[in-house]
Amino acid sequence: MALNIQNILSDNAKSMRRSAIRDLLSVANRPEVISFAGGFPNPSTFPVEDLKVIMQEVLETESVSALQYGPTEGNGKLREILAARYRAQGLNITKDNVVITTSSQQAIDLTSRIFISPGDTIVCGLPSYLGALQSFWSYQAKPIGISKDEDLEVVVKTLISSGKKPKFIYTIPDFQNPSGITMSLEQRKMVLDVAKRYDLLVIEDSPYREIRFEGEPQPLLYSMDNERVMLFGTLSKTVLPGFRIGWIIAPVEIIDRIVVAKQSSDLCTPVFDQAVATKYFEKGLFEKNLGKTIDLYREKRNHMLNCFEKYMPKGVTWTKPEGGLFLFVTLPAGYDSTELFNVAIKEDVAFVIGEAFHCDGSGKNTMRINFSFMDEERTEEGVKRLAKAIERMFERKPVESPSTF
Amino acid sequence: MALNIQNILSDNAKSMRRSAIRDLLSVANRPEVISFAGGFPNPSTFPVEDLKVIMQEVLETESVSALQYGPTEGNGKLREILAARYRAQGLNITKDNVVITTSSQQAIDLTSRIFISPGDTIVCGLPSYLGALQSFWSYQAKPIGISKDEDLEVVVKTLISSGKKPKFIYTIPDFQNPSGITMSLEQRKMVLDVAKRYDLLVIEDSPYREIRFEGEPQPLLYSMDNERVMLFGTLSKTVLPGFRIGWIIAPVEIIDRIVVAKQSSDLCTPVFDQAVATKYFEKGLFEKNLGKTIDLYREKRNHMLNCFEKYMPKGVTWTKPEGGLFLFVTLPAGYDSTELFNVAIKEDVAFVIGEAFHCDGSGKNTMRINFSFMDEERTEEGVKRLAKAIERMFERKPVESPSTF
Repeated sequence: MALNIQNILSDNAKSMRRSAIRDLLSVANRPEVISFAGGFPNPSTFPVEDLKVIMQEVLETESVSALQYGPTEGNGKLREILAARYRAQGLNITKDNVVITTSSQQAIDLTSRIFISPGDTIVCGLPSYLGALQSFWSYQAKPIGISKDEDLEVVVKTLISSGKKPKFIYTIPDFQNPSGITMSLEQRKMVLDVAKRYDLLVIEDSPYREIRFEGEPQPLLYSMDNERVMLFGTLSKTVLPGFRIGWIIAPVEIIDRIVVAKQSSDLCTPVFDQAVATKYFEKGLFEKNLGKTIDLYREKRNHMLNCFEKYMPKGVTWTKPEGGLFLFVTLPAGYDSTELFNVAIKEDVAFVIGEAFHCDGSGKNTMRINFSFMDEERTEEGVKRLAKAIERMFERKPVESPSTF
Repeated sequence: MALNIQNILSDNAKSMRRSAIRDLLSVANRPEVISFAGGFPNPSTFPVEDLKVIMQEVLETESVSALQYGPTEGNGKLREILAARYRAQGLNITKDNVVITTSSQQAIDLTSRIFISPGDTIVCGLPSYLGALQSFWSYQAKPIGISKDEDLEVVVKTLISSGKKPKFIYTIPDFQNPSGITMSLEQRKMVLDVAKRYDLLVIEDSPYREIRFEGEPQPLLYSMDNERVMLFGTLSKTVLPGFRIGWIIAPVEIIDRIVVAKQSSDLCTPVFDQAVATKYFEKGLFEKNLGKTIDLYREKRNHMLNCFEKYMPKGVTWTKPEGGLFLFVTLPAGYDSTELFNVAIKEDVAFVIGEAFHCDGSGKNTMRINFSFMDEERTEEGVKRLAKAIERMFERKPVESPSTF
């Protein structure tokens, strides 16, 4: 008789949730589908010619170390480069505050692993990044989502008074995924103030910060408080995702614990990829290429917004993000984007249902639209198809006029 | 006031143990130290020239996919190649039984994650691979070590009768780390027989199998039972460790759970590295290069054995492994290799204390010696220094003759 897997699963495994994106998109893999779903960078931004040169150089001059095991903390030069870049943004850190992780997803996961015990609460946005929610759930945490109208302090106080003090506050202050919202300076001060008063750790997940099209950047949370913030970064959006290079910036006592957890997770981050990334920074290619990427994504955002203006039926609203990779779209109250997805996929267009980003199951009338990946023509065609799918849904169930009483 | 990290650590974090190797070796990082400690492949085996060609080809022809996010399961071609290679060894599998992991350390870790709840027992060798023990401990498992003189069935029955049925049996059947022992066919049948009768999962961790210098290979456990074995492999010893590419072969229901766990761990294994590895196999370079590696390591093993014969004082014994990367050395009873380490490090020679591989704290008179990394001259000099350190220890505390009564 074969082994019955269900009988021996861990408690953690039982609380893991599949990615809703993944399951929905398994039906959207046909080539004719125009997908606005993934968070994929545009391949035209990949610095292929630069990589050809750098990889040959790494193989020529440092293959002995670049193809060997490396330190769990990561490449020393890369850690120093990242530390220096953040010091220029006001962080009081050294390379000892930096550990290189196998993607910023691993940064989230190792952090969850060292802080979350079963039943612990954590506080996050409503909506928030699905991959983070998946990691929190996988350690049996209870994420408490806070919508933009709620008062963080009230939620924290209520949790504490019921003996459920959150382990940390998870934030994406710049171009939040999926909402696209950037925290104002006042909001940043408020979050850190609440964290300080109630002695809480704050996670600053920051994959999109450098993809800013316009407006002035706000200071990093870590630059405002270097005792209780962990900052996560990645090369996935600014250079390429295929290397899986991310990092954690944190107080050294936390770095120390992360390193022990990383030892048993994967020993070290891919060493060759780190050597290539290091040279990429050293040659000043990061800035050069990032400028082009921002210009491209600004155009793509503008084009997407134009298409939305042109085709979307009345009643649909959407964000106008100053950076990042996504529009966040809201249907009139009472409509369900999962229902829309099932109509849209027949029209060969896909997106991510907003509900997937809401840890409490709300946000049913929302959806996330990626604008970085698709070319202009397919973008316009995709928005047309989406608009048509929405219109059909409206026809079956008309938008209610607000009551005049 | 700064955050007190200790107050918010997870139960898992509290049960994590630092690598003893890592801490011991932090004192052995001076360039004058001859270290037999790491499990490092010899850099001369890295296929640098082949990689130069392959990387240019990947960048030239498939940069759009190789630098992008990839599927959590891994590169489809690579999964098919690995499945075919194992089918040739008698496994009844398809690529659906394969998931690519970020190193075989991640294979161990994801498996621990989906099966181990706090307090669960698992059964492993005494000694066994330290990185696996670290992962088991980090999920609050209690590893039960079985020495080669103990009866697996008796241990399993005792555990079950006390309500502590093990979640799995962790084995390294070929050139076990650190003992170098390879399981006989009879032992393999016995392990699978016990597993079947008591309905247990068996882990077959197999990083060294292909590094065989002489003798006939035994069948893979998975080829003898494809319903209750998980097989782990890696490119770290046969090609290079710097890519961090490993894999799990398992029944599809287990693969399915591993994939969900991997999603929240790091989304996907480095995509570029997988593309390069795929081409490396496709071009038939794996076999070509592996043959050279085996020849080199056979010479290195012979040289190490010669040096041991030549220099080691009476009373010290060691294994003569048919493959792998390590000798396992035993000091006379009553001697402590940690004490020896402290003497040896002053003589500028390092190894790993055997105790680190014993989950019950036994094995104090053992040590692991790597022979793949060091060149011939330094190997001889290192063994000389080690022998001298052992002689000094013997002088301070003479080896007792066995009682004649």
